[in-house]
Amino acid sequence: MLPKLDVVAACLAASLSVASAQTFRRLGTCPTLGCVLPPDQQDFLPGQEFDIRFEVHAPKNGSEAFNNGVPDEAFTATIAKDGRRAKSIAEFFKLKEPSVEKWTFSWFEDLFAKDAKTPSVVNVASKAYRRVALYEPGTYTVTLKYYSGKTTTAEWTVRPLATKKKAKNVIFFIGDGMTTNMITAARLLAHKTVNGKYQTLLSLDEFPVLGHQMTHSIDSFITDSANSASALYTGHKSTVNALGVYADSSPDPFDDPKVETIVELLSRIWGSAWGAVSTAFIADATPTALTGHTRARSQYGVLVDQALNGVANYSWTKTGGPDAYFGAGAEQFIAGSGSFEGKDYYNEFAKKGYTVSLNKTSLLAAPNNKKALGIFCKNNLPVWLDRHIYTDNLEIINDPSGANKSAKDLPGLKEMTLKAIDVLHKRGGKDGFFLMSEGASIDKQMHNLDYDRALGDLLELDDTVRATIAKLKSLDILDDTLVIVSADHGHGFDVFGSSDTKYFNAQTDERAKRDAVGVYENSGLSQYTEPKPGVSYGTGANFPLNWDPRYVIAAGLGANPDHREAYGVSKTPRTPAAAKNGEYYVNDKDRPNGFVVNGTLPTDAAQGVHSLTDVPVFARGPCQDTFGGTYSNIDVFYKIANCLGLAQGRNVTEGLKRRRD
Amino acid sequence: MLPKLDVVAACLAASLSVASAQTFRRLGTCPTLGCVLPPDQQDFLPGQEFDIRFEVHAPKNGSEAFNNGVPDEAFTATIAKDGRRAKSIAEFFKLKEPSVEKWTFSWFEDLFAKDAKTPSVVNVASKAYRRVALYEPGTYTVTLKYYSGKTTTAEWTVRPLATKKKAKNVIFFIGDGMTTNMITAARLLAHKTVNGKYQTLLSLDEFPVLGHQMTHSIDSFITDSANSASALYTGHKSTVNALGVYADSSPDPFDDPKVETIVELLSRIWGSAWGAVSTAFIADATPTALTGHTRARSQYGVLVDQALNGVANYSWTKTGGPDAYFGAGAEQFIAGSGSFEGKDYYNEFAKKGYTVSLNKTSLLAAPNNKKALGIFCKNNLPVWLDRHIYTDNLEIINDPSGANKSAKDLPGLKEMTLKAIDVLHKRGGKDGFFLMSEGASIDKQMHNLDYDRALGDLLELDDTVRATIAKLKSLDILDDTLVIVSADHGHGFDVFGSSDTKYFNAQTDERAKRDAVGVYENSGLSQYTEPKPGVSYGTGANFPLNWDPRYVIAAGLGANPDHREAYGVSKTPRTPAAAKNGEYYVNDKDRPNGFVVNGTLPTDAAQGVHSLTDVPVFARGPCQDTFGGTYSNIDVFYKIANCLGLAQGRNVTEGLKRRRD
Repeated sequence: MLPKLDVVAACLAASLSVASAQTFRRLGTCPTLGCVLPPDQQDFLPGQEFDIRFEVHAPKNGSEAFNNGVPDEAFTATIAKDGRRAKSIAEFFKLKEPSVEKWTFSWFEDLFAKDAKTPSVVNVASKAYRRVALYEPGTYTVTLKYYSGKTTTAEWTVRPLATKKKAKNVIFFIGDGMTTNMITAARLLAHKTVNGKYQTLLSLDEFPVLGHQMTHSIDSFITDSANSASALYTGHKSTVNALGVYADSSPDPFDDPKVETIVELLSRIWGSAWGAVSTAFIADATPTALTGHTRARSQYGVLVDQALNGVANYSWTKTGGPDAYFGAGAEQFIAGSGSFEGKDYYNEFAKKGYTVSLNKTSLLAAPNNKKALGIFCKNNLPVWLDRHIYTDNLEIINDPSGANKSAKDLPGLKEMTLKAIDVLHKRGGKDGFFLMSEGASIDKQMHNLDYDRALGDLLELDDTVRATIAKLKSLDILDDTLVIVSADHGHGFDVFGSSDTKYFNAQTDERAKRDAVGVYENSGLSQYTEPKPGVSYGTGANFPLNWDPRYVIAAGLGANPDHREAYGVSKTPRTPAAAKNGEYYVNDKDRPNGFVVNGTLPTDAAQGVHSLTDVPVFARGPCQDTFGGTYSNIDVFYKIANCLGLAQGRNVTEGLKRRRD
Repeated sequence: MLPKLDVVAACLAASLSVASAQTFRRLGTCPTLGCVLPPDQQDFLPGQEFDIRFEVHAPKNGSEAFNNGVPDEAFTATIAKDGRRAKSIAEFFKLKEPSVEKWTFSWFEDLFAKDAKTPSVVNVASKAYRRVALYEPGTYTVTLKYYSGKTTTAEWTVRPLATKKKAKNVIFFIGDGMTTNMITAARLLAHKTVNGKYQTLLSLDEFPVLGHQMTHSIDSFITDSANSASALYTGHKSTVNALGVYADSSPDPFDDPKVETIVELLSRIWGSAWGAVSTAFIADATPTALTGHTRARSQYGVLVDQALNGVANYSWTKTGGPDAYFGAGAEQFIAGSGSFEGKDYYNEFAKKGYTVSLNKTSLLAAPNNKKALGIFCKNNLPVWLDRHIYTDNLEIINDPSGANKSAKDLPGLKEMTLKAIDVLHKRGGKDGFFLMSEGASIDKQMHNLDYDRALGDLLELDDTVRATIAKLKSLDILDDTLVIVSADHGHGFDVFGSSDTKYFNAQTDERAKRDAVGVYENSGLSQYTEPKPGVSYGTGANFPLNWDPRYVIAAGLGANPDHREAYGVSKTPRTPAAAKNGEYYVNDKDRPNGFVVNGTLPTDAAQGVHSLTDVPVFARGPCQDTFGGTYSNIDVFYKIANCLGLAQGRNVTEGLKRRRD
């Protein structure tokens, strides 16, 4: 049931739309046939650069079929501030009128149409206006007129100016997929209670200010890590898989209307140093959203090039490349099919003056005054649990050089982050720095239903935060540095009791195994904090002393593929479901002593999926008090940007001159 | 593996204990054979009254068997402040030495012992010291000596004084079982987004300060609503099922060592008015924890008597009874088997000067200057969804008079809360008031996996909070009133996508039904906010306009009994599992068009269970800034108590004189 009528006011259009919750959408931000990108209800930082795209849709068939599939190429668009006279887009932004682009795309109106293989086809006429900015705070009304009488309106809000830099540095930790529920579970595993009182706490527990941010996409209530990272870094929500752009309907994944990111702004305005650290492959969404502009997060090679060289196909803000860039994913660096244009990106970085480290020893020895690249293995970094406890799992072919061997001299998130701070502090100098540090496998292991591996990496993030605060103190920059710890989305994980593994394993009947679970008073206390000869690891105060006690947490989530549940640690990484004829069923090799739980997700799902929940924001340092309460993920950007004085009323480019090569 | 050795320092004892996480415990707060209650690591408000109990255990058999099962009756106990000279308990508190009590109890060492029906039996010698208080902030060391050389030590901390009242009134909303995940889902159902921006928000979203509280019990990491409510109201964690006491091992559920509650303190010190409102039966844990002192929350009749008359078997602070007491659960008021001593508690309350209302009309008409009781039905109040949308479900025999008819003239949480504020404001006068208002069925419906009913009641709570703030403003007491909204524990609920009910219902294969679920970009937007003729209800801006759209939320939790999942609203209240030979299986009458999900809980579980997650605390008003960050549930009590000036360095009883009858 898609709307047949376009209406004048977008808010009215929205209230009449019944097309808004379907499985598939023609274009999520465009319930009418006339599309304005950025769409209605978007916010902007004063001076933030962005592109504009208009599309007029002419569905050829399906419930919306219109005008015999001929889109109106004579559409017009205007912009007006606070009720002042509307001007054409070209006039307002002093641009040459662009030419009309045309393309065709198709989509399914619902699952029945998909099953029947009956797509709806849409012809499009479009124009894009590139690299504009709004400097004056207030409300702008953009009006698209098309089909001789139809109108789509978008109201844009330019937020207040904040030109003064209150924090010299910002360190933004992202626990990918990390929720309050997981933080609570991680605390239980690593920290001991005596009669209900924790004897030690997480580093996160000591943050003075707490907020919640809403993670939903612009056009779906469940987000992925691409558009949620973009929201955090740009103040603009987008569509699943999109980075630094509003997704349009064109076939080209690199022509979507862009928005300037926090590190682009910071480079342009203040010339600060910036860096990204991740336990994922560095071309993954959370790190590349800092510099990436594409609708398709899977364009890994291009995204690494964009991080180094900026957007190539349009005039756009260059950051000069990251000052520190540490993670995994050698596939995009080794010359070959995974790298951009088949080039050797170790060499591309080196040519731009980077030291290149392929192991921890080299990383720690790298000079702090030079730009630094560190890529430590293929794929993602092995998780904390495998690096420290189940080290047999490191025996995989993942050397970052491409050699046929295992990467063993691996840094963790803490080593990478502390080194990045050294480099950024040195290179940023009086201009300060911005660092994003991501605990990526919290998410990746939750997808695998591998709770222990996820929680191990959450504890690694927490340990890194603790070490970071100590580091900032030792560098005497703690009071100048805003430290934020948050997430990009959740997974519906929670702990609901304990399980007696001895009893569980002694039962042969699958139903009887469930009786090993103790709930309420029978949950008992955490045994992960009890030292035990032979299974206690020298992993310090902030990690479990025993990952494999008799009584383990019983935990789970509501969004599952078919799988077996055995509770307790899996000594090898999990693969809960296996494919058979294109559908996923229980993987009989995974947790073979467990009981079968049939899934709740579509049968093509091999893994768990992201969830809706608001995620926590922990803040300390300058501007910390602005992070209390509940807000959207885009507000995290505006809060950081205001603390960094990035809301400028004029086109500031002084920073670019100071960016060092 | 239970410990064979008792050790000197309790902290050392704790670190050596390997008995701490088992399914069953001899006594959760006592890993050694000598027990101090309150145990090690407990905090106290200066001047807060409490009892002390010592127990010496002599296990007759089992892994801990000791001294042929003969407990040491000659044990001694001392207390010393900050390293000063230790005095005997009797000397320190100027009490007569109590006589020794003796009893026997038994427990199972693990699930194998339970299956084998081989309990361990323990003989106990004990002494209790009743109604003491510590007035001087600092650290106290309590030492129990027994068995000629064994020692158990408890360190108690008396928190700082805070004698000044900063808030005149406190309103404490408890969403029972309410988590951040549920709040996020409720927002999605009731509030509309346009291109990712919410057009309206929850009342909770507008609170300036947010915190997280840890809900775990004193001796298990999953709590129930009794001991978590006690922690919130007394600053003392306890054991599952316990209210206002530390659970001891004696057979009598009414002789456990008590702690004074917030309303007892407030009555004694300031003589403020107080009230409780709940959508549960009023004898349920969350309301009765305000005044109840028993290890057994199921003592419903006694608990109602304790609310009215205070503790009967010991000298203890009397509150004079609640000024407003509104909820359900007529079973404890109608003369008969459900009421204390078979008495008519409507009459017992009336004799003490209460107006008694059995329906909404009567409630609203009750005078504000008199104490008010309102009991509106048997069992729990029907949920918001059934009261407003699926009203056929009100056709049950639940009249509060005991008559064989349906209670139809029902108030909701909002009407009860606003009326309670009128009564408390009037009766509290210059002494102010404390009100606890509970959205109880958020929890009760999550137990049933009935997400829509739970979220409806969460939205009712939010609507009540909004109306309360408006009410306080209209009474000109908003700035004098600390408003807190929190929860007592969670359930592991989250939303992970949408489901196309039309597609779901068109599939006959259970696996194919799962393909109706849309995740990520296919989750779409909420259709609950779209008006639709015939299914849009006049339920105002803060509730869904359509509870039964084509595209519904796909949600769930990890802790389940066997059940069917159909996504979307159940038009009748759910009963997911049904008993067969003492085990629970899928209830074939519940969601018959759904697909089967086998459970993850013990097979004797008919319902979902509580979860571990920290829960949010929203605060506004005087002292709001003290509620930021992460802390234990007991800290909520200390923060409120300090804001109310209840931390007193002397025995203050002035309030009692001002309590009106």
